[in-house]
Amino acid sequence: MTTEPRRAVLGQNQYGKAETRVVRISRNGTTHHLKDLNVSVSLSGDMDDVHLTGSNANVLTTDATKNTVFAFAKEHGIASAEEFGMRLARHFVSSQESIRSARIRVEEYAWDRIGAPDADGARHSFVRAGRETRTAEIHHDGEGWEVVSGLEGLVVLNSTDSEFHGYVKDRYTTLPETRDRVLATEVNARWRYAGTGLDWDASYARAREHLLHAFAATYSYSLQQTLYAMGARVVEHLPEVEEIRLSLPNKHHFLVDLGPFGLKNDNEVYYAADRPYGLIEATVLRDGAEQRIPVHPARP
Amino acid sequence: MTTEPRRAVLGQNQYGKAETRVVRISRNGTTHHLKDLNVSVSLSGDMDDVHLTGSNANVLTTDATKNTVFAFAKEHGIASAEEFGMRLARHFVSSQESIRSARIRVEEYAWDRIGAPDADGARHSFVRAGRETRTAEIHHDGEGWEVVSGLEGLVVLNSTDSEFHGYVKDRYTTLPETRDRVLATEVNARWRYAGTGLDWDASYARAREHLLHAFAATYSYSLQQTLYAMGARVVEHLPEVEEIRLSLPNKHHFLVDLGPFGLKNDNEVYYAADRPYGLIEATVLRDGAEQRIPVHPARP
Amino acid sequence: MTTEPRRAVLGQNQYGKAETRVVRISRNGTTHHLKDLNVSVSLSGDMDDVHLTGSNANVLTTDATKNTVFAFAKEHGIASAEEFGMRLARHFVSSQESIRSARIRVEEYAWDRIGAPDADGARHSFVRAGRETRTAEIHHDGEGWEVVSGLEGLVVLNSTDSEFHGYVKDRYTTLPETRDRVLATEVNARWRYAGTGLDWDASYARAREHLLHAFAATYSYSLQQTLYAMGARVVEHLPEVEEIRLSLPNKHHFLVDLGPFGLKNDNEVYYAADRPYGLIEATVLRDGAEQRIPVHPARP
Amino acid sequence: MTTEPRRAVLGQNQYGKAETRVVRISRNGTTHHLKDLNVSVSLSGDMDDVHLTGSNANVLTTDATKNTVFAFAKEHGIASAEEFGMRLARHFVSSQESIRSARIRVEEYAWDRIGAPDADGARHSFVRAGRETRTAEIHHDGEGWEVVSGLEGLVVLNSTDSEFHGYVKDRYTTLPETRDRVLATEVNARWRYAGTGLDWDASYARAREHLLHAFAATYSYSLQQTLYAMGARVVEHLPEVEEIRLSLPNKHHFLVDLGPFGLKNDNEVYYAADRPYGLIEATVLRDGAEQRIPVHPARP
Repeated sequence: MTTEPRRAVLGQNQYGKAETRVVRISRNGTTHHLKDLNVSVSLSGDMDDVHLTGSNANVLTTDATKNTVFAFAKEHGIASAEEFGMRLARHFVSSQESIRSARIRVEEYAWDRIGAPDADGARHSFVRAGRETRTAEIHHDGEGWEVVSGLEGLVVLNSTDSEFHGYVKDRYTTLPETRDRVLATEVNARWRYAGTGLDWDASYARAREHLLHAFAATYSYSLQQTLYAMGARVVEHLPEVEEIRLSLPNKHHFLVDLGPFGLKNDNEVYYAADRPYGLIEATVLRDGAEQRIPVHPARP
Repeated sequence: MTTEPRRAVLGQNQYGKAETRVVRISRNGTTHHLKDLNVSVSLSGDMDDVHLTGSNANVLTTDATKNTVFAFAKEHGIASAEEFGMRLARHFVSSQESIRSARIRVEEYAWDRIGAPDADGARHSFVRAGRETRTAEIHHDGEGWEVVSGLEGLVVLNSTDSEFHGYVKDRYTTLPETRDRVLATEVNARWRYAGTGLDWDASYARAREHLLHAFAATYSYSLQQTLYAMGARVVEHLPEVEEIRLSLPNKHHFLVDLGPFGLKNDNEVYYAADRPYGLIEATVLRDGAEQRIPVHPARP
Repeated sequence: MTTEPRRAVLGQNQYGKAETRVVRISRNGTTHHLKDLNVSVSLSGDMDDVHLTGSNANVLTTDATKNTVFAFAKEHGIASAEEFGMRLARHFVSSQESIRSARIRVEEYAWDRIGAPDADGARHSFVRAGRETRTAEIHHDGEGWEVVSGLEGLVVLNSTDSEFHGYVKDRYTTLPETRDRVLATEVNARWRYAGTGLDWDASYARAREHLLHAFAATYSYSLQQTLYAMGARVVEHLPEVEEIRLSLPNKHHFLVDLGPFGLKNDNEVYYAADRPYGLIEATVLRDGAEQRIPVHPARP
Repeated sequence: MTTEPRRAVLGQNQYGKAETRVVRISRNGTTHHLKDLNVSVSLSGDMDDVHLTGSNANVLTTDATKNTVFAFAKEHGIASAEEFGMRLARHFVSSQESIRSARIRVEEYAWDRIGAPDADGARHSFVRAGRETRTAEIHHDGEGWEVVSGLEGLVVLNSTDSEFHGYVKDRYTTLPETRDRVLATEVNARWRYAGTGLDWDASYARAREHLLHAFAATYSYSLQQTLYAMGARVVEHLPEVEEIRLSLPNKHHFLVDLGPFGLKNDNEVYYAADRPYGLIEATVLRDGAEQRIPVHPARP
């Protein structure tokens, strides 16, 4: 009896330059505007040869994709993360026969202005703002578009209006029920748009605002319930959004037992724990929409 | 004309306790053994109520899943990351009617022994070893199993035997071709097993060894070629592996231009860059196998 | 000839619990207030025995110092990072004979309120604010006090009004001179107070404001000049401050060469580099004051 | 009454390029050798003008110091981190009149070879080794030298032979005494050399070995005792070392209470905690030596 030797074949593959840090300054007289992006390019197409034989005949270098990011920032400006990402994706797919699809991932960092205009009315000083990172992921295959925007690292906390009880008690359950706890999380959200001709910055601002509002306004019996309220509010108020995926680590704030010191802790003193943490993840969709945001986000 | 109000519905969802850091010490006389894991539990099932109404009647608490990790480490020991993850997954799915599937993600940290046995033959001193993290991800839905093992952060470098030329030259291409470059990457790999009754630690050691060997032995014309050689070697040498997904950041080492100082850089002095970096990703499969490892890895 | 065996002796030593994460919530009716601190305790005193023989007779456990942080948050509240740190330092030095001095390091994380009060006028929802961390380091030896406050991670950028030229040209100098560059840095500042009976939060806000103002208002010929302007402004406007130590990484924004693509980069497109970075550090003092802030900050 | 306006003056200051990542490859036939360093340069001298007026006439650019790192790697090679740092320091102080002292900080990353030589006897494949970073800090003022070498991030664990009891019990003490605990720490060490004409790599290897040996061999009643044993062993066995500063976070491994699950935890299952952590720091000196290593290490 002979054993057939095992043969390996190539599956899904993609390549590109990750994390090109481009800053674009535009001037309106003495008032400057700033766009601060981290752009990752990922391309797929006829790439069998480069994997199997090392022939680079079909390969646009990752270095060239980086150069394209910088050149496009000059040639076309950066109207928004989404618009910029779409322009890059269209370019790669339409200009290189070997490239069939492009995925552009953008992180955007926010800046506020420092102080009032100076004596000349000039405004060109900035301070990094906020703790969250705005994200946009654009996929284009030459025909269709998929635009998924989002944010990461938006940390929020309710100091009351959160209960947790009525759960399953198995052999390993020791958690006491509570009628008043701190509920804190780091909002990581990605939402998919129905179309493409949007005011992306305005839509982002609205989504962020609705997420914050729903978190604050929900009297919570579980973090799942709060998550759903946040997602549903975005889906119901933004007609341009088809679905939203939320990943919410439960940033536990444990009530410290002060009994040994003869003190009563009346929901005043908490220990903010790092690990382990609950992790609650779900998609909320417009009724009738198709779920297409992958469960796990792209890296980087 | 009236507009139908938009209605939101719940999509895919999962929850659990992430990053429970469990260390298990077992004693064989005065010789101690150590398993050092970071375990994340993620459960799915009949969870509509908790999202829609806040009822926790179907919810096993994430705190209880953490307790289960610790209790199982005592009751069953930790034979391997994979075996431990499978035991946990089976428990959650089989013991709670509302839970239909479980995903267990394990990171394992390696330790070496310090020095020789002491006067009494005792061996209970350890030093953390290696830079890579071993990973295992187990999915179980009450019937089938999926076991994906891997490693992250294995940094390797070839100081020669790497060329890069013959690529597409578009308007934005400025990279000079090279016949001798440094090729360095951080190996991030996940491989899926055909079955479950394995010596997991031995299989991991073999996969790691083949990855290193293929990286070192491949005369490279592109990182894609090296990637494929690494993946194919694992698939061809490990009959238990169906597919492997590799994500290889190109850790660029740029030759420093010493010309301005009147010096010639004969492939001696390099600048190790951080960002941006090329990112090459692909799956290599056994011919006939189905590609099931998701493109992007789970977090955490 | 015989060689005297070398003998080791104990030098400066300190110990304590680092990074106790305490969150204090206080209620004014339905309006809640939040203090979010990371407290590190470091104690010195008669600790020869514990090092030389392992006798713990003089050792207050680090666990007890952690408990004290939590208990004091209940018993005394947290008026400010500085006041809280002073209370802790006084306690450890005055209550334990073996402890001669205490150093308390506090990091404070800022939170903003989310939205307007709800229907009941309740205000108990928060979002983490800003990117900088406020710091306070208190040293007390039973008699004197040293209070050094500061901030870390305040990232700022001027998109013009920065030149760099006229520097030394040695054999290794290749940098072209410039009359218009982006100047960006991450402000890390520590300032020492002359006394202790202060409105600490107000003083912090003023220092932060003056740092931002001086950064924005200085037409800069070097980052050193900007640093000095920032430090001098704090020293000159805050009579309570004796000296300030600034550590400013030059977050280089390099103008991208777009010439190869037939494009002119008129100070529009920059590459934000990570490493290497210039690092400019200096102390600015009130004329007549003594320099006492150590060159390198304490960890953690 | 009039108030004298407050006047600011410049205190201690320094500047340079931080974190230049230089990799030097040298070839001995087909066997390659690799040095992988992260070099930070910090210079002091006649720098009043640049701070007070922005004149750069005395300023060697940080860019030129970076170039010097690369050029010296070519011109002189990298025999060791210490030798390379000394050469750089001497250059800056001796070649620029305005520069009076230089501090060079080097991090070194270790690599192992992959596998055996190939068919041609070639050896040019490497894998990053170990978790610790070797450090060297050189200070030179034109006359004297100070060389402080060290390591960071060496994580070690004893699974027994550690007790902790007999400590002070104050009102806030709740920790139970123990006769058998896990003792784990991350060794961060810096040692100062008496002279300069040494085999630096051999001395580093000896120091590391003695630290590991003393950690493993000490039956411990406190982490302070273990720290002292480690430091004393280095001082007593390395005649070239004057003093050593150790900073040891107590990486707590807490025994998990399995009682609620009807299980007994016989020192088998531990929870590896992140924060807070004990932090034990001390200097050990050769009897008669002067303590000169600063309490807190330089950054970066």
